[in-house]
Amino acid sequence: MIIVMAPGASEQQLAGVVDKIRTAGLTEHVSRGTERTIVGAVGDERALTSDMFELMPGVERAMRVVKEYRIVSRESHPQNSVVSVRGVPFGGRALQLIAGPCSVETPQQMAEAAAAVAAAGCRLMRGGAFKPRSSPYSFQGLGVEGLEYLQSAAREHGLPVVTELMDVRMLDTFLEYDVDVIQIGARNMQNFDLLKEVGRVNKPVVLKRGLSATVNEWLMAAEYIAAGGNHNIIFCERGVRGFEPAYRNMLDVTAIPVLKKETHLPVIVDPSHAGGKAWLVPALARAAIAAGADGLMIEMHPHPCEAWCDADQALTPEELTTLTAELRILAEALGRTL
Amino acid sequence: MIIVMAPGASEQQLAGVVDKIRTAGLTEHVSRGTERTIVGAVGDERALTSDMFELMPGVERAMRVVKEYRIVSRESHPQNSVVSVRGVPFGGRALQLIAGPCSVETPQQMAEAAAAVAAAGCRLMRGGAFKPRSSPYSFQGLGVEGLEYLQSAAREHGLPVVTELMDVRMLDTFLEYDVDVIQIGARNMQNFDLLKEVGRVNKPVVLKRGLSATVNEWLMAAEYIAAGGNHNIIFCERGVRGFEPAYRNMLDVTAIPVLKKETHLPVIVDPSHAGGKAWLVPALARAAIAAGADGLMIEMHPHPCEAWCDADQALTPEELTTLTAELRILAEALGRTL
Amino acid sequence: MIIVMAPGASEQQLAGVVDKIRTAGLTEHVSRGTERTIVGAVGDERALTSDMFELMPGVERAMRVVKEYRIVSRESHPQNSVVSVRGVPFGGRALQLIAGPCSVETPQQMAEAAAAVAAAGCRLMRGGAFKPRSSPYSFQGLGVEGLEYLQSAAREHGLPVVTELMDVRMLDTFLEYDVDVIQIGARNMQNFDLLKEVGRVNKPVVLKRGLSATVNEWLMAAEYIAAGGNHNIIFCERGVRGFEPAYRNMLDVTAIPVLKKETHLPVIVDPSHAGGKAWLVPALARAAIAAGADGLMIEMHPHPCEAWCDADQALTPEELTTLTAELRILAEALGRTL
Amino acid sequence: MIIVMAPGASEQQLAGVVDKIRTAGLTEHVSRGTERTIVGAVGDERALTSDMFELMPGVERAMRVVKEYRIVSRESHPQNSVVSVRGVPFGGRALQLIAGPCSVETPQQMAEAAAAVAAAGCRLMRGGAFKPRSSPYSFQGLGVEGLEYLQSAAREHGLPVVTELMDVRMLDTFLEYDVDVIQIGARNMQNFDLLKEVGRVNKPVVLKRGLSATVNEWLMAAEYIAAGGNHNIIFCERGVRGFEPAYRNMLDVTAIPVLKKETHLPVIVDPSHAGGKAWLVPALARAAIAAGADGLMIEMHPHPCEAWCDADQALTPEELTTLTAELRILAEALGRTL
Repeated sequence: MIIVMAPGASEQQLAGVVDKIRTAGLTEHVSRGTERTIVGAVGDERALTSDMFELMPGVERAMRVVKEYRIVSRESHPQNSVVSVRGVPFGGRALQLIAGPCSVETPQQMAEAAAAVAAAGCRLMRGGAFKPRSSPYSFQGLGVEGLEYLQSAAREHGLPVVTELMDVRMLDTFLEYDVDVIQIGARNMQNFDLLKEVGRVNKPVVLKRGLSATVNEWLMAAEYIAAGGNHNIIFCERGVRGFEPAYRNMLDVTAIPVLKKETHLPVIVDPSHAGGKAWLVPALARAAIAAGADGLMIEMHPHPCEAWCDADQALTPEELTTLTAELRILAEALGRTL
Repeated sequence: MIIVMAPGASEQQLAGVVDKIRTAGLTEHVSRGTERTIVGAVGDERALTSDMFELMPGVERAMRVVKEYRIVSRESHPQNSVVSVRGVPFGGRALQLIAGPCSVETPQQMAEAAAAVAAAGCRLMRGGAFKPRSSPYSFQGLGVEGLEYLQSAAREHGLPVVTELMDVRMLDTFLEYDVDVIQIGARNMQNFDLLKEVGRVNKPVVLKRGLSATVNEWLMAAEYIAAGGNHNIIFCERGVRGFEPAYRNMLDVTAIPVLKKETHLPVIVDPSHAGGKAWLVPALARAAIAAGADGLMIEMHPHPCEAWCDADQALTPEELTTLTAELRILAEALGRTL
Repeated sequence: MIIVMAPGASEQQLAGVVDKIRTAGLTEHVSRGTERTIVGAVGDERALTSDMFELMPGVERAMRVVKEYRIVSRESHPQNSVVSVRGVPFGGRALQLIAGPCSVETPQQMAEAAAAVAAAGCRLMRGGAFKPRSSPYSFQGLGVEGLEYLQSAAREHGLPVVTELMDVRMLDTFLEYDVDVIQIGARNMQNFDLLKEVGRVNKPVVLKRGLSATVNEWLMAAEYIAAGGNHNIIFCERGVRGFEPAYRNMLDVTAIPVLKKETHLPVIVDPSHAGGKAWLVPALARAAIAAGADGLMIEMHPHPCEAWCDADQALTPEELTTLTAELRILAEALGRTL
Repeated sequence: MIIVMAPGASEQQLAGVVDKIRTAGLTEHVSRGTERTIVGAVGDERALTSDMFELMPGVERAMRVVKEYRIVSRESHPQNSVVSVRGVPFGGRALQLIAGPCSVETPQQMAEAAAAVAAAGCRLMRGGAFKPRSSPYSFQGLGVEGLEYLQSAAREHGLPVVTELMDVRMLDTFLEYDVDVIQIGARNMQNFDLLKEVGRVNKPVVLKRGLSATVNEWLMAAEYIAAGGNHNIIFCERGVRGFEPAYRNMLDVTAIPVLKKETHLPVIVDPSHAGGKAWLVPALARAAIAAGADGLMIEMHPHPCEAWCDADQALTPEELTTLTAELRILAEALGRTL
């Protein structure tokens, strides 16, 4: 912790800061500059918060030096972690594609979708049984029935499934239906009770970035899960909220290398929610892979025109197959495999 | 719904759009412009989504005309609604102040705080028993014990209490402890399962705005609560996330008149979380009242320097008393009372 | 300057940092923490930039301690500065209102506008002769002719005029027409050559905040003007760009107390451009004054329906008179005059 | 133009809207919905602005249907335009790299830089002689002397040069020194007088995106240049301002496919300014190319540690050579050449 004293701070005010540092079990280093006096607190900074100092008279600012996340930080674990989903590795040399419809609708839709996902060479299937919809009057998902349709279609093709958990009370049902990867959606990235609960189970978690979450907040959300004992976390960038009306979200590709530097955990990207339009998906998917993502989560629907929600961001099976082929060439050029 | 056809759209594509409108039970109006053809869908627009059309070939854009919120809209209820909290009215001529510490810490702290809140002329008390903290290693609140300390201190002074509910599983406990106002925090504004549950109880709800929620999303979140039958909703603006590093959030005063135009429900402001610094609270409190807010939620701590969290945004009891006196004069100048 | 060494930085890397500090004529203070070593550079920090250190091997981060602005800072000049415009003081106890149309259109429009501005009790008149329009096909202002209409109408009522300078080549013309206050618009806040030129003349300047300028960048833009010798600067907050589609810009009231703390110069607010709608102007004007602004710049048009641009944000003369009366009561409640 | 009447608008108010449409030479189409009446204005929409209607009583909203940009729009020119810079084509199958230091410092630095740029296979050289610096006390560039150093070093290696024009009064000097590409920086994207002037000369222009400019505003800025007769415009995405403190700007890759859809003109990316750190440049450069950019503008300095500004975003010559080799493989995988 570094504490910058205000210009004109008194010796007594400085002594107060020094006292507080010592009380917390750290030691101080005082640098008297020409315009400001600066105090460094040496020791375990995690005993301190900047608030403890910024409120004191004579203090201008206090800044952390050490990062707050530990388990998920690359500092604590320099090698890449590989998260395995029923044998499918995330975070190694191989890129992984997750595809499927936004919402589970009918058994037939899911059967067609699963066949298309497998045929396109994707190794996991997604589908929402519980949907976070901004309107209470919109279709909210099929619920438990949806989990069943998803699993039975996906198992047919040996595809592990990814599906979103919104309500902590449904966690047991997710375990019962043997959901392979629990997705925490953007709106729940800081639903801390939900994070704590998925931290207690032994299931991989896809943690989407909040609508306007900083990278630091996102890492701290992962730390909540990790602190509970579950280290099988996959970050998923899905675009952030910006000022631009021309597209739904702004895909933040810079977050990919920054995360790869800060954490040992895998990072994937959802190009479908980011852009909000099917025609944008190929360009955003390529950019994500080129920036270093470990995989993609792509919306695909066997018949997008009839889809019950978010239809205009879903690829057709043919478009998915074409994109997969393109991405395979790209992966190779980048020294990875698909 | 208005559908704008792309330049060069064919007659067949136009016929497809017309078909879809009729199938949904509405009728079409076609305007052939010099550069674009525009189709209006006349009837109950809520049967349609813009996605249904934007995915169709030949369509450039589709736009809603009618708003999606109903119960909370002023269109549906032109007069102001007054939400009464144990006799304290929100949304009428009288402004209401809610004050208290960020976190419940000890019975003594709460006793001192309650006395100071009452002495300053505030009519409700706040205090967090369950705290949404960005780090799993930070103090997470006293939990149920905190509810007890809060209630027993507040009841002593006849103050109804406001406290945050984060986990749907704690709702029964909140009812058991007879919490007077349930606060839904910014991070849970789109925790839809939580919204649905508080929609089923008969308790006033303070709904904070999400970190980067649009006014429309916020109104839709309230609609979730209202759709469950609970219409006792108080909006609380608390600043939005922006690019400015000089203060924590950007207080969005424009949202106040916009909400007052769009909804009949009361709107209050939290100037403490908005600015993140105690010295900013008076200016932001005045601005909020001047822009038309129906009340304020202010952080006050009997001994801010010792507070366990967010201390640098808490006023002292003396500062709260001074501010209340200032606001009383301001309220009068605005034709309101305090 | 504080330099935080990366974990694992070598002694040699530390020596490199120390060398660089000494070379710049400062001295170092080294604090060896348990996880990071921190180096403070003591002396005239303005000889250093954070880049000089952040590029060096073994350095994690470098942070300024002293602010970069000098002349405009309150540190350098603790009392409020009053900027006088032909005897009208900005920055004292009295609030000042500037009103007038977005664009100068005709001599008659200006005559009516000037009469209405004076009648409403505003002491300065605004009007744009050169207009920054986002489309090259929109009306670009009357140019020099507009300056003439503005001045002759305003002089009739003894009103000093405020008008925007966009092009450095027009400065002499502005001086020739004896423009009383030169406005630098949001889009030109970092047009540094323009800032330098207005820094060389002896005319008050209204400096609008850039569309997404930080408070620090804004202060630095003012420092450009001040460094040229012209200290007659009035800051004008006009809303920043945000994610909210419901209103044009987001009025940042928090910037007002922050600026008043950081600089001795006056701060006014433009509620018309901020909200973009006439019906929002009164609420935003009140909020600005309540937050501590020293004045307002308000759009008023004698016949808004016929206006050539930005009409929907202009008040009518009657609305301006009503607002002025309201603000007078508000000003008194805040211990100021109008 | 589509005009949505407010609920409860009178027949007289509707007649007023119809009148205004007819007066402007267009014809109306009225659709009476169950909740709203909608009026379409058929004819040349460019005679209308939404303000003309939104101010009228009984009108809720007015929306444009046709885009405001013409010359730069792909609608007006469906094929890609290739902008040739002394024989180097931008916008064709070949990707183009522009590299060089942020600032021109000395003849020797420029000689080394030019050699390194050519050796790495880049076909244009950049270097700033006039620098937009946020502080008036920072190095402002060498000015005309810098143009000379830049040109003489670049010509030695047959490299056309790109350099920033900030002040309209320097345009003749730029022409005299035969600058090959005039760069308009982010801070001047809406310096309309500057845009008009570069629209009158016959030189390619690199138009950087403003700090928080929408794609539409950016296209309109290009339209200013094009309207003057200069159609040799290259768009350059350089990151936008966001809420994330971990990196300087947020590179907006989504803007690339959106621009390629909206305009026929080439689009390049500046990964150096976007991320603000040299270590981020390779990932961002790859992402930009993968998203469809036609080229890159990269900061490279022969000795970054000694650079006078923005040093921590400059690559070394070796890093540039490595990156170029990587990008060549990537380009091929994408069906392009480098």
